[in-house]
Amino acid sequence: MTEKKNRIIRLTRPPVVLASAGLVGKKEGEGPLGDCFDEIVPDATFGKESWEQAESEMLRRTIELSLTKAQRLPATTDVIFAGDLQNQCTASSFAAQTFSLPFCGLFGACSTMALALCMAAIGLDSGAFATAVAATSSHFCTAERQFRHPLEYGGQRTPSAQWTVTGAGAAVLGRANAQPGGVQITAVQLGTICDLGVTDPANMGAAMAPAAKETIAAFLRFSRTAPDDYDLILTGDLGAVGSELLYALLKKEDGIDLSPVHNDCGLMIFDRALQDVHAGGSGCGCSASVLCAHILPRMQRGELRRVLFVATGALLSATSTLQKQSIPGIAHAVLFSLDN
Amino acid sequence: MTEKKNRIIRLTRPPVVLASAGLVGKKEGEGPLGDCFDEIVPDATFGKESWEQAESEMLRRTIELSLTKAQRLPATTDVIFAGDLQNQCTASSFAAQTFSLPFCGLFGACSTMALALCMAAIGLDSGAFATAVAATSSHFCTAERQFRHPLEYGGQRTPSAQWTVTGAGAAVLGRANAQPGGVQITAVQLGTICDLGVTDPANMGAAMAPAAKETIAAFLRFSRTAPDDYDLILTGDLGAVGSELLYALLKKEDGIDLSPVHNDCGLMIFDRALQDVHAGGSGCGCSASVLCAHILPRMQRGELRRVLFVATGALLSATSTLQKQSIPGIAHAVLFSLDN
Repeated sequence: MTEKKNRIIRLTRPPVVLASAGLVGKKEGEGPLGDCFDEIVPDATFGKESWEQAESEMLRRTIELSLTKAQRLPATTDVIFAGDLQNQCTASSFAAQTFSLPFCGLFGACSTMALALCMAAIGLDSGAFATAVAATSSHFCTAERQFRHPLEYGGQRTPSAQWTVTGAGAAVLGRANAQPGGVQITAVQLGTICDLGVTDPANMGAAMAPAAKETIAAFLRFSRTAPDDYDLILTGDLGAVGSELLYALLKKEDGIDLSPVHNDCGLMIFDRALQDVHAGGSGCGCSASVLCAHILPRMQRGELRRVLFVATGALLSATSTLQKQSIPGIAHAVLFSLDN
Repeated sequence: MTEKKNRIIRLTRPPVVLASAGLVGKKEGEGPLGDCFDEIVPDATFGKESWEQAESEMLRRTIELSLTKAQRLPATTDVIFAGDLQNQCTASSFAAQTFSLPFCGLFGACSTMALALCMAAIGLDSGAFATAVAATSSHFCTAERQFRHPLEYGGQRTPSAQWTVTGAGAAVLGRANAQPGGVQITAVQLGTICDLGVTDPANMGAAMAPAAKETIAAFLRFSRTAPDDYDLILTGDLGAVGSELLYALLKKEDGIDLSPVHNDCGLMIFDRALQDVHAGGSGCGCSASVLCAHILPRMQRGELRRVLFVATGALLSATSTLQKQSIPGIAHAVLFSLDN
């Protein structure tokens, strides 16, 4: 195997987070972070005729909300970076369409929020954009019928399975100095694909943990930092199984103990003891809604000053699973720092 | 409808094309551009067990070939931008995985080559990358079974239908001055989504023509240029139906006659009189292979000096079609100029 070529991209003119918004469904609203979300929508149809259109409407509302909070009109915004889990990323396309803005469609599965932030930050740093939106969504009902079973089938879930979050997150980023004293993105790192041969689509935490390990270890190595240099190292949605594997891999291969500073959006969004979610939450909207509605506001309040956000994605499809292919994982990293 | 906000992104340090490669299948090799392609592979399985893996292998070989031609090892390359038409872009993920390089997955349907070039160019301009690969693929057999019918069904095709190209293209880009006298990317423009309500998935040219019109008209307007300032304005794969609509829309709404400088990759790759392709070629690999194996080499030989490449995408899925949604179109533009 070729040597992995992870590399930190330092942003010379660090973009700032102008505002962010996270919107979730009923079950997510009943979880431990219920009070944080900008909106909890009890109707999973979002007033639409299909789950797919419901997800698109949820994403549209979240983007709109983030722009309102940032006091930006679509007309003063340059680009939307978005992607989702639906085949051909239709949730994002139909949502982005309503804003009539230049649109860059991304596919990173559950790593999409980090990927969107990476690409937005690079474009802002280069001067290509002055204001950029990074957004993503997932919906339990679209994911179930596309990747697993029709909801009506009522299939049993294995203990390692994660529950796809109905939720969306959007962040509006501006150029350096657009908001002094705010939260900056000071560095990003695009991940390489890791595949240790996991083939069980009901154990995505295990499939994604090696990629998270790879990205975090490389980021710490190249930045010459240690876990305790961060207030929080936040993974996307490894859930219970993946988080334990991440700790074990980092300990064994790099001698790093991540547990004191680590948390996982898939573990934070649900109460696994009270809510029937098995290994935790998953889906693009999981890390996006937790980051945008909980973590970034905590940074803005000064409760966290340095957060490494590492969203993980399992790059499988229903077809690749049926064809018995293993599940490639990827993890992209975004370093948020509170500007003094 | 909000006013569309297309905007040209001028690259202050224009990235250069270090090399490009285009690889196609048997039918494409029998077309008018047969002599141009780097490789014509008669075996559509590419030695693999499924069409999906075949497409992935084709993309992998094309990326590898482009790096060889650019005299770059994966170890001296910073990132791969790629996407494709397979659900969850698995052709790209499985191909990118073999290079162990940072990977940015994109979804732009048949506009993906232009989108990948846009994002690579912005990242090179910003200094985030020193060498970047932009690549995409499509395969007739994966597209047919995913979007239309099983091949064995032998369904009739309507006259407006296009034939998905089995092909892939990859371009290796370097920073400004990495290759003086070569082909530069001097400007890019991300497209906005246009949807005039076309719902027929067998008429993608019509669905994408409004987006191509929008992007081309905006590019000419904002750059204060006219069609005859270009040696070629090259659309992705509008085919016969879409190209006629593009001319009509530009003439009627903007008073622009595009026909003297326009060509379309979907019309160039096949001989419609001799090959059974109805309205022409389509698929991400159509514009990618034509650009990378025919147009960019022509520029390098000095036969073309200024080419506006506008790849178009139809952002539909089989699900959105079944749900009777219209087909959103998008077109991204890349301006190639020969450095003096």
